[in-house]
Order: sequence, then structure tokens, then C-alpha cells
Amino acid sequence: MFKKPRGTRDFTPEEMQKRQYVQERMRSTFKKFGYSEIQTPMFEDLELFTAKSGEGIIQEIYSFKDKSNRELALRPELTAPVIRFYVEQLQMEPKPLKLCYFGNCFRYDRPQKGRYREFRQAGCEIIGTDTSEAYAELIALAYTILENTGLKNIKLNIGNLNILSSMFKQIGLNKDKQQYLTPLIDKSEFEETLVALQDFNIKPKDATNFLEVLQTSDVKKIQDYIKNDKKALDELSELEKILSLLEKSFNIKQYNIKLSIVRGLDYYKGIVFEIDAPSLGAEKQLCGGGAYDLISLFGGNESPTAGFAIGFDRTILALETEKYKFPKQKLQIYVIPINADMINKSLEITTKLRKQGINTDADLLQRGISKSLKYASSINTERVIIVGPKELEKESVTIRDMKTGKQEIIKIKDINTYLEK
Amino acid sequence: MFKKPRGTRDFTPEEMQKRQYVQERMRSTFKKFGYSEIQTPMFEDLELFTAKSGEGIIQEIYSFKDKSNRELALRPELTAPVIRFYVEQLQMEPKPLKLCYFGNCFRYDRPQKGRYREFRQAGCEIIGTDTSEAYAELIALAYTILENTGLKNIKLNIGNLNILSSMFKQIGLNKDKQQYLTPLIDKSEFEETLVALQDFNIKPKDATNFLEVLQTSDVKKIQDYIKNDKKALDELSELEKILSLLEKSFNIKQYNIKLSIVRGLDYYKGIVFEIDAPSLGAEKQLCGGGAYDLISLFGGNESPTAGFAIGFDRTILALETEKYKFPKQKLQIYVIPINADMINKSLEITTKLRKQGINTDADLLQRGISKSLKYASSINTERVIIVGPKELEKESVTIRDMKTGKQEIIKIKDINTYLEK
Repeated sequence: MFKKPRGTRDFTPEEMQKRQYVQERMRSTFKKFGYSEIQTPMFEDLELFTAKSGEGIIQEIYSFKDKSNRELALRPELTAPVIRFYVEQLQMEPKPLKLCYFGNCFRYDRPQKGRYREFRQAGCEIIGTDTSEAYAELIALAYTILENTGLKNIKLNIGNLNILSSMFKQIGLNKDKQQYLTPLIDKSEFEETLVALQDFNIKPKDATNFLEVLQTSDVKKIQDYIKNDKKALDELSELEKILSLLEKSFNIKQYNIKLSIVRGLDYYKGIVFEIDAPSLGAEKQLCGGGAYDLISLFGGNESPTAGFAIGFDRTILALETEKYKFPKQKLQIYVIPINADMINKSLEITTKLRKQGINTDADLLQRGISKSLKYASSINTERVIIVGPKELEKESVTIRDMKTGKQEIIKIKDINTYLEK
Repeated sequence: MFKKPRGTRDFTPEEMQKRQYVQERMRSTFKKFGYSEIQTPMFEDLELFTAKSGEGIIQEIYSFKDKSNRELALRPELTAPVIRFYVEQLQMEPKPLKLCYFGNCFRYDRPQKGRYREFRQAGCEIIGTDTSEAYAELIALAYTILENTGLKNIKLNIGNLNILSSMFKQIGLNKDKQQYLTPLIDKSEFEETLVALQDFNIKPKDATNFLEVLQTSDVKKIQDYIKNDKKALDELSELEKILSLLEKSFNIKQYNIKLSIVRGLDYYKGIVFEIDAPSLGAEKQLCGGGAYDLISLFGGNESPTAGFAIGFDRTILALETEKYKFPKQKLQIYVIPINADMINKSLEITTKLRKQGINTDADLLQRGISKSLKYASSINTERVIIVGPKELEKESVTIRDMKTGKQEIIKIKDINTYLEK
């Protein structure tokens, strides 16, 4: 027997209903914020991803050669393809350009809950503006999208990589040491960070102080720590402006400053943010984003860019963990012919109802009334129409509510009005 | 500069709007017919596809090894994955099981108009019934889906492989000769077929007769040709019953009998059908389907199966060729602050409108009123709201219709009622 490849999933009708519901909620929120949807191919030249993330990424992705020996890779994320598309074709579009997308991505990773080899991302990029208003709107969009899916318990954290850099300088750490520390800091492994700082011969008091500021949400404390770095102070007031816009203009009041966000990516700069679902435990991050520069790396004309990606599968997991009640789609009508002579009339009624936009199915197996009723109930039908010879003489059918069991005889021509009630 | 891989496509917002519109129309038709949507992974074990289509398919697909040396392949079609999913997980579901799907597929093919290396398919399978009613409904569904996308000029052809087999027997062709002929017949290359029949030493009269029946829609003529084959005659009356159901019960009156449909696939049996868009020329086939058996080949418990696949990209091409007017989505409101002091209020209004479900964007660049109006017009905005200090004193804004140029001053609290008019 054949099996699906390891780390991939099949989605049953019930799971697909959930996924489509959530995707539609996300899509309509993107549209409300003026974003337009695009799509890129499922694979790209491998070089696109190594240019962005370094050769190391090859270990984590599905790369292969095509029959003309081109090095290709299944996309591990969507930002690089979207910026490639922008540089190749969209540079002349009016700015700011607001692009959003949904797509499956692929990573050769150890499969576990919330981590799959094929997973889905939603995301967006805004190109051509770097105002505080634009960044505040971007963060508000990410937050609103997750809120609009129905999630109750999400946590928004906002940081700034330039302030973090300034703090590294303050404590006297060179690039190499920074690079050693950032993965620890990004994972909030502060005890290990402290040990590392001691190994780097940072004075205990300086190290403790550094870690305290790294974990504080108190703007005053941060200000005080970076008070000698004019540029960092400017970044801090921009961060404050963004927070104030979030509250006053975008009505988002729940957030934290979190300077330890690194996002592990070299091309991010300035503002960064993450949204978590604490209910998910270790794999709790639903969304990550910020300002970055990839366009010039990909050969385009420099233009400020920011964006975010949302883990679609984890969003569904988080909703399930919160026991969110997804709406269930039911078949509206199931038409049952009482005997073989009633089949044609049953199919006629079925066709008519479908034309009127009603989701309708009919018994195609001629298996008798009781088996058909059982089937209709097993697939969650709302109502059943039974077509029998006696009723048909009067141009009527029996209609039965599958929930209450109540049934009535009505004229065929009145079915539609009956259903509208 | 990076480029998209050869034979793949990026989709602009305008193209995506068309694609989503068509997909939604298809999806809602599937639902009206009682189908449930599922999804399978983008790649499968290579063996799944060679089991179905033979080793030859390896030449036409993207196959590769993963880091654990598993032989995988990007899916070239969706029926094999769906049946694999069924056998692996859905065999106990109530029958008939009606499954539909949309998904991208991949073929290593010479790119040309209507043929891409990454392309999209829509399709469905019905498992657990082999009644004429079920087949008629399946064909009606395929036809209705294409009709509901807005296509005017489509052609439905219906054949039967058992009748074709009987005709081969009648003329005395063994399996090898049949296999040589079927690709010619399937492509309606009847002159070449005739040459081949002569090479096989078939009498000229017999060959001409065979080709005439192959191309006729006249049931009488077919009946006469296969009159000594009881099984083939039964198949012919089933075909007639299906055609009569199509007309009377499903209201589909445009179709042709076409016995030369082969579908080039060994696992099809009995009823087969195709729907073409003649406007597309050589690459005109939009849909192909029929009854087949894959379940037992994949190790499941035998159950009658039928289904079809629709070429999504060609459907879009056909609509474009017919100059179909796709609905265009516009941004509903663009909010412009007259100066920097008006930004916060502008964003507040923007946030409020979005909450009310209106697709709204705001100037985030502070680039002045005339440039902002130009931008709003370039992205096809319906209306612009201008937030200025004089109007704001009276809790009002200016609202401008971008089509007529007409503008009015209205109270902020009345914007919503104004827009509903």
C-alpha cells in the first residue's frame, strides 16, 4: 500500500473546511487593509535561497536538479520569491505596493507537532514606504488578521534590531560574539546568555545590566542604557511613535516591547515583531516580521520594504487548542426516490434546486429509503426530500427535517419558498 | 538578476483576481453537486506514479531524491494522490464518496501557450457507484462547472472504451496493433489511422467502415457494427441511457457521441468523456474523465470509481479568448490627510471603516494631496476621503467619487450610511 511521504499531510473534507474558513478570514482582512494577492511558482532557482540565507539553507530544504541540470529548490519560504517577482516584473508599479499571498512551503525538517515538511504560510510585503505609520499599520494588520480568525489569546512583541546593536556596542561585543549570542537571545535563553557573557569576560554587573535591559518593557530604562547613542535614541522614539499609533490609530492596546527579538535573519533591520499563541507551548510563534532589505541584494532599485509571515498550520492548531467552534458546512438537501420509477423526477428536482444555488445531492444507488436516510444522516444533511408515487400524482414531495425528524408534504413548485423560510 | 524557473509563472494581482473568481465559481458548483473538497501533498513517492502510468512517466515529471534517499516526485496529476489518500484513510467513509480538489501539478514539458511546467487542475472522483445516473451526473457536473465559469462555447464528447474494444475485435486487431493505433485515434488523426490499418493488411472496405463508425454519432450505425457482441450492445444501451438522463434529468442538450476518445490511459474502462473549447485551437481540451479502476491497483478494496480533471489554466485562457468580462475588484476608499496633523485622524477613520468591512487604504507617505489623488486613481480606487483641518473642526470630511469627480462634505459619523446608499 502506498503512503503519503513522511512529514506531509492529507486533508479530509472536515479539515479543509476549517482551513478554507481561516484562509478566507485572513484574505478578507488583507483586502480590508488594501493588499492585493499574488502568487509565485512552487520551486525557484536554488541560488535565490542561498543568496538570501546562505549555503547553510541547502541542508534544510528540498533541492534537486531538473532534466536540464538546473539547480532548483522547493520554496522554503515566500519572501524571497515575492521579492524576486517584484524585481523581475513589478518595480514600476505605483508605490507603496501592498502585496499579500498564501502558499505551501517545504522544509526538510524533523516532523513534529506544528512542524511539517510541507506547510502553509500567509504573508505580505509593503514596498516603498518606511514611515512609522506604515510600520504601525503593518503590525496592526498582522494582529488584526490573527484576531479575525477567532483567536482569543495572542501576544504581540515588538523590538528593534538597531537598538539591540547599540546595546551590543555598549557592552563591547564584536560581530563574532554577537553572532554567537543572537540565537540564544532570540530563543530567550537568558541564563545561557549570561554564561556566555561571563566567558567573554564581561563584568558581572555589566552583564546583568545588559540582560535586564534586554528583558524590560520600560522605555525609560532602555533610554538610559543607550543614552550616548544618538541614532539608537532616534530609533527608540520611532518605536514609541509606532506604539502610540498602534494604540490610538489602530486600536491595538495589547503589546510588549521585546528587544530580544532577533529573527535570526541577516537582512532584517530596524523594527521587528512577533505574535505568539502561548497556548501552543514550545512551537508558539504564529507570526514574525519587520523591516528588511532584499531588493538590492536581488538586483533591484533600493526601496524600503517590510513584511511578515504567518504560520497557517499553527494558526489552525492554536484555534483548535482554544476549542474554537469552526462553522460546519452541511449538505442542504438529499433527494431520495422511493423506487426506480421515481429516479428521473428525483434528478430533475435535484437539478432544479442546484440551479437555484442550493447544495443538493440525490441517491444514485437505488438502495431503498431506509438505507438512503441512514446515508443522508451520516453525511450530515439538513433536509431530505422523498419522492414517492402517491405524492407525485399531486405534484408534491415529502420534505423532512433531519434534526427534528418533522416532515411535511409540499408542492414541488413551492420547495424553494419553503426552504427560504 | 534572478528569474522565475523556465515554464513557471508569477501571477499579478489582476491575474490572481481572475483565477480566484474562476476557482470560486468551480468550487461552488462542486458543492452544489454534493462534493467535499480535500487536499493531498505537492509531492508523492515516485512509485505511486509509475505504478499508475508506467516507468515512461519518469521522463515527463520532476522526480528527485530527498536527503534520506527516498525517490519522490512532484505530482503530475491528482487522481493517483487522491486514490492513494482514499486507500490509506477514507475507505470506511459512507458511499458514494464524492471528493473534489484544486491543486498545482508539474510536468517537465516543452513550455508553450496553454502548457506550463507548473499548472493547475480542478477535479473530482466519485467512489462507490457505477449506475448510469451516477455517470450522467458526473458528466453533467463537468459541463455545468465549465458553463458556470462563464464559458459560452464548449463541446462535450462522450465515448465508451468497451465499445471501442469491441470494434477492434471486429476488425481483427490484436493488443499490440491496438496500442499502436490508439494514440492516433485519440488525436483524431484518422488519415494516419487508415494508413496504419492498410499496413496491418485490413481490407480497404473494412478499414473505411471501421473509421466511419469511429467518427459517427449515429447510434444505429454503431449498433449495426457491433451487433454480434452482446456485451458491447449492453454498453451501448447504457451509453444511450446516460445521454437520455443528461437531456431529461440534467438539462444538458449539447453533446456528441465520440467513440474515438481513448484518454491514453490503461486504467480507464467503459464510459469516457471530454469537453473542449474549440476557440483554443490545438490545445483545446479543457476536461477529460470517465470510469476507471485504480483502487485495487493501489491495494484497496475494489469499488467502482469515476472522475474527471479540468485544466484550470486553459479554462482561464478560453474565457480570455471569449473576451469574458471578469469582475474587477477595486479599493473602496482611500483616505488622504491634508497635512501631517491630520494623519492620526485619517488612520482612525481608516481603522473604523475597515472594522465595518470596507476595503480601505490611507496615504502613509505624506506626499501631499495631488500626488495622493494620482496614486488613488492609479490603483483604481472608488472613492477618496480627504481629511482637512477646516472640515475636521465640524467633525466632517470631504468625500470624492473618483469616477464622476463629484465631491461632498459629510459628517464622519455619517460616512457609513453615505457609503451604503
